[in-house]
Amino acid sequence: METYPITIGGVTRHVPLIEPLPGRRIPLVEFLGDPELVRAAAKALKPFVPPGTEVLFTTETSPIPLAHVLAEELGLPYVVARRRRRPYMEDPIIQEVQTLTLGVGEVLWLDRRFAEKLLNQKVVLLSDVVSSGETMKAMERMVVRAGGKVVGRLAAFRQGGNPSLDVVTVAELPVL
Amino acid sequence: METYPITIGGVTRHVPLIEPLPGRRIPLVEFLGDPELVRAAAKALKPFVPPGTEVLFTTETSPIPLAHVLAEELGLPYVVARRRRRPYMEDPIIQEVQTLTLGVGEVLWLDRRFAEKLLNQKVVLLSDVVSSGETMKAMERMVVRAGGKVVGRLAAFRQGGNPSLDVVTVAELPVL
Repeated sequence: METYPITIGGVTRHVPLIEPLPGRRIPLVEFLGDPELVRAAAKALKPFVPPGTEVLFTTETSPIPLAHVLAEELGLPYVVARRRRRPYMEDPIIQEVQTLTLGVGEVLWLDRRFAEKLLNQKVVLLSDVVSSGETMKAMERMVVRAGGKVVGRLAAFRQGGNPSLDVVTVAELPVL
Repeated sequence: METYPITIGGVTRHVPLIEPLPGRRIPLVEFLGDPELVRAAAKALKPFVPPGTEVLFTTETSPIPLAHVLAEELGLPYVVARRRRRPYMEDPIIQEVQTLTLGVGEVLWLDRRFAEKLLNQKVVLLSDVVSSGETMKAMERMVVRAGGKVVGRLAAFRQGGNPSLDVVTVAELPVL
């Protein structure tokens, strides 16, 4: 299997190259299962969390360990938008994501009990990898609908050539 | 909203009561978003991880922060079985879960690249809540199919009256 070296916060991993579309290969970063890589990424991102931030907001599933470790480092709570409706949800906020890359629309779900944790709060959006920025846009809409205020947009990795995205990142992933 | 007090590792939360089946109310523990509760649960579970354990194995989504923090405390990696097929998966191990509680079968997915991390390893199964034990049984089958050896079964909470389950837990959840 062909691999590619990626580095963040001084930690390097040789990750597999996957081909989500014909002729478009990308390194597959995996934070799940790798405490050392997550800790390094969280420490690299920590200085970019604006002072006064009150809660982090992320999505299921791969960014969860990063959000958790960064939140604990900052002494803040975090909220996770789910990608499936859970049976216990009541009056959830439902937000479609325009995922042009995959050609399919994904949907984010946020139970009202968790949406209330964003109300009148200064919120930082957090992803593991930002590419088109569409997931980040959907997250921002959810925060606004929940009555919160977005004060920062962070991702560990920026993938591909979209330097105009208003997202702070600390490492780059190529599209090969 | 009615709540119920749950305590683990000296940390108490007043969590909502949900009614998954008519007349059967249970406290809804949420580790996602709560670094203090996760840290307390991980510290409570740590002494019960058998010496010689090489990797933890858990499932998406709610147990992920607990697995991550416990793995980091132990200096071990962990592997996460997914609940949806991901586009990048190759030759995954697919395992059905008999979830009698909900009356619907769930399926666990484990990409071959991650299954390889269980091969010839001493594996501890980890959940947040164990109830019927069916998810734990499915996880055990996956480890065996991946060529690993289960050396321990841990969960933060035991829910309802099934003391015969061969799972170590550090707190109890009632069925009201």
